[in-house]
Amino acid sequence: MFKYKLVIAYDGTDYGGWQVQENAPSIQATLQQALETILQTPLGLTGSGRTDAGVHALGQTAHFTAPHEIPLAKTFASVNRLLPPTIRVLSLEPAPTTFHARYSATSKIYHYHLHLDPIPNPFTHLYAYHPPHPVDLSLLRQGALAFLGTHDFKAFSHKSHTGAAAHDSVRTLYRLDIVPEEGGVRLEFEGDGFLYKMVRNITGTLLDLSKGKFSLNALPALLASQDRTQAGTTAPAHGLFLIQVNYQRRVRAASPP
Amino acid sequence: MFKYKLVIAYDGTDYGGWQVQENAPSIQATLQQALETILQTPLGLTGSGRTDAGVHALGQTAHFTAPHEIPLAKTFASVNRLLPPTIRVLSLEPAPTTFHARYSATSKIYHYHLHLDPIPNPFTHLYAYHPPHPVDLSLLRQGALAFLGTHDFKAFSHKSHTGAAAHDSVRTLYRLDIVPEEGGVRLEFEGDGFLYKMVRNITGTLLDLSKGKFSLNALPALLASQDRTQAGTTAPAHGLFLIQVNYQRRVRAASPP
Repeated sequence: MFKYKLVIAYDGTDYGGWQVQENAPSIQATLQQALETILQTPLGLTGSGRTDAGVHALGQTAHFTAPHEIPLAKTFASVNRLLPPTIRVLSLEPAPTTFHARYSATSKIYHYHLHLDPIPNPFTHLYAYHPPHPVDLSLLRQGALAFLGTHDFKAFSHKSHTGAAAHDSVRTLYRLDIVPEEGGVRLEFEGDGFLYKMVRNITGTLLDLSKGKFSLNALPALLASQDRTQAGTTAPAHGLFLIQVNYQRRVRAASPP
Repeated sequence: MFKYKLVIAYDGTDYGGWQVQENAPSIQATLQQALETILQTPLGLTGSGRTDAGVHALGQTAHFTAPHEIPLAKTFASVNRLLPPTIRVLSLEPAPTTFHARYSATSKIYHYHLHLDPIPNPFTHLYAYHPPHPVDLSLLRQGALAFLGTHDFKAFSHKSHTGAAAHDSVRTLYRLDIVPEEGGVRLEFEGDGFLYKMVRNITGTLLDLSKGKFSLNALPALLASQDRTQAGTTAPAHGLFLIQVNYQRRVRAASPP
């Protein structure tokens, strides 16, 4: 068996999400079908994780195994010719047989884009969320600090479509930066893993904080509650981008035993 | 009668162009209808000029006259609520009765975006053209010089939908700069006016030059031919943005009589 790793970018607007869905085309199924057409063999395509309907990606990853070695350059060119322009394979490379797009991942980076101009931009309305109220960036920055580090993020997670809550909802958020960009800001999340809707729930809660629905010192209690009904709103899908999936261990400063 | 000037941004992807069309919604009709609904009076909306199906705008201008004075702030807010998110009114202000969106314009700026990464970007495929061949930027820059200044641009114009060629096809191109941007370059055109499809025909001819279809010293002859069939390809609509319509005379250095 030969294993291959893909990096994929997609505009999630017209899809029902990464995962195979009944009522809308999925990115996973569209890509798998293109690869099967080219390689003339059934293959399973496993992503690093799901993205919801409307969520975009600049660096989703996936793997598949093929019963024979595949011609890399030819397959790479063919798959991009066959795919709709809303999905692009950015790289295709051989992977060790031990590689798994989901289980080998050591960290992920997500960006959530907020458009803050008074008038929504006709070119970013599908790629950034335009909150209907003013946003206090200083409050957003202070609120973000409450989420950094290792926490049980159960209060900021939804059950997935299959109805299953994550068995273990402890995750480590390495970074949550509010970075200015043209027309607004983006929230940059980097963590060892993310629960279902966790980025959108944290973003929505920070926007609730900015609206005055929560106070700054209520945030630790929200986290500690482990109760989804206590935490804030879920920010819309279309502002969210999966930017990068990392497979190297983070270098940490040595700590005494 | 009260006259008003609008500045408008739109994503042209889903429209049949600025002008009223039979088979596809037009930006002009969509905007006029929104204004008529709000102001409860029929009004004619006159743009600075047409943009074709798929062409975008960040700074299209238009004017209309109303039989009574209109509440500016309220109308401005209402029209953006009523319009689809692909069309935004960026400003609405009173204009002198002598103002005419088309005839008062002294110059226009258009940008044509070329995406030059080997793999087309799923987020810019509707907003930049991805030429299927390598582009020689140095040749593009040299070729652009041939178009600067005052010329009869008949060879670079199509007849409009009404079948009429422009009566006078002499125009002055002040600027044609090739400016690097993320993922590629944009061609910045500034001129006292542009004939139908002129920007797309010049861009297509420069790309033909880059492909070797024309040589650099053939360009003056193409211009002089005043023959559309001699000049190059028309670049696709989706890379083109109307950026700005100016109503001030350009300040020129004094020249001796």
